[in-house]
Amino acid sequence: MARQAPQKQWLYGWHAVLAAWANPARICHRLLLGLDSGREFQERAKMPVGKHRPAVEYADRSKFEKILGKGAVFQNIALEVTELEPLAMPDLVRMVKVRDRVTFIMLDQVTDPQNVGAIMRSAYALGADAMILQNRHAPDGAGALAKAASGALELLPICEVVNLSRALAELAEAGCASIALDEGAPPIHTLDISPKVCLVMGAEGDGLRPSVRAAATLAASLPTRAEFGTLNVSNAAAIGLYECQRRVKL
Amino acid sequence: MARQAPQKQWLYGWHAVLAAWANPARICHRLLLGLDSGREFQERAKMPVGKHRPAVEYADRSKFEKILGKGAVFQNIALEVTELEPLAMPDLVRMVKVRDRVTFIMLDQVTDPQNVGAIMRSAYALGADAMILQNRHAPDGAGALAKAASGALELLPICEVVNLSRALAELAEAGCASIALDEGAPPIHTLDISPKVCLVMGAEGDGLRPSVRAAATLAASLPTRAEFGTLNVSNAAAIGLYECQRRVKL
Repeated sequence: MARQAPQKQWLYGWHAVLAAWANPARICHRLLLGLDSGREFQERAKMPVGKHRPAVEYADRSKFEKILGKGAVFQNIALEVTELEPLAMPDLVRMVKVRDRVTFIMLDQVTDPQNVGAIMRSAYALGADAMILQNRHAPDGAGALAKAASGALELLPICEVVNLSRALAELAEAGCASIALDEGAPPIHTLDISPKVCLVMGAEGDGLRPSVRAAATLAASLPTRAEFGTLNVSNAAAIGLYECQRRVKL
Repeated sequence: MARQAPQKQWLYGWHAVLAAWANPARICHRLLLGLDSGREFQERAKMPVGKHRPAVEYADRSKFEKILGKGAVFQNIALEVTELEPLAMPDLVRMVKVRDRVTFIMLDQVTDPQNVGAIMRSAYALGADAMILQNRHAPDGAGALAKAASGALELLPICEVVNLSRALAELAEAGCASIALDEGAPPIHTLDISPKVCLVMGAEGDGLRPSVRAAATLAASLPTRAEFGTLNVSNAAAIGLYECQRRVKL
């Protein structure tokens, strides 16, 4: 598919900015620091200001707010970067074919940047190899996503696809099973989990779209109280990924 | 211990307010609704305005902000309640003695109301019987906690104790094991988990205080990547509780 050129976006918050700054794959354009934050940045940044990194611009609250909008918890640091090049399905298919085990996580209709970021963080920590999304997060959500991901945006590749069901079919053909998390299904710990697996998560409330659920090779539930069913989507993802991780490790 | 009388506090957001409103144990003092929210409240509220429930006061944004402070995502609904009576250690000891299984979660130095609320939500969903805290959340954090708990504040009892280590010793004496989540310990899935167990969580970054860790009967880790160790505390709690739940169910 034709893809538009990578866009510029603003990241903010210490964790997210320091991780992007230290990532050699990141193109960095502008660095904004609060008036008192120069020394902290010098102490914590893993790459010097120089050829591949912009000079510091000091900024007061109103300058931050003008650029980031009101409400962003920017912690007196912001960095303008070019978004990372995403993976495409052939990259994932290759990973499935050459590796002994892979874990992917696919999000269907989960759009809140904080949820997506929180899931990236736990997905990377729990050993996931890539996240599959249908639509790229809107650029104005990038900052909140990166902050919630707490550095994982630099580490966990994102794969963008046009059609999630088709992506699951391609993965299955390559030898990667998929598990749709879904309330009515058998508990996840009773399933055989393949060492090559994609966990498929729907949005809180609405759950997975039927077409996506039908395209997954398996469905599984989490053992929650019947009368108060829903876990936060990022907690549900963490449990699902933990279970994939644990089962293959045992 | 002498305890101060229960205080009044404001809850906000639809989920948290409707859950408190429907909870017979809640004393409700004032209900604030946005000018256009009357019909939605009538449709969703499970108890009528009447003897035990206050009349509606309609409010504009500035009235909400005056009462709740700026920054609260109040969704045009707020309810002033008396805080629920917490449990005390003798209540938990009794539960341990009379039940076949119990699951508690103890938080050491986890103070962010959103984290505590998110943990309450997943703890209740995953079958926990009570949460043990050293210090009651500050009353001004009650709204954020309740909103993140998404109704679980009405369902999961809180037990307040003066000394966490002593509480763990009392639980152990009654026959309830405890598992401290701690990076260097063996993976949780390799442990024998007792059907009466208290999961002990420290704050992100700092982890458990050594005295609390030492008071737990066991320690366990989660299988995260070594170079990027930390899960969000609410995700770590969800995984730990899931594991307790799954192991005892199997």
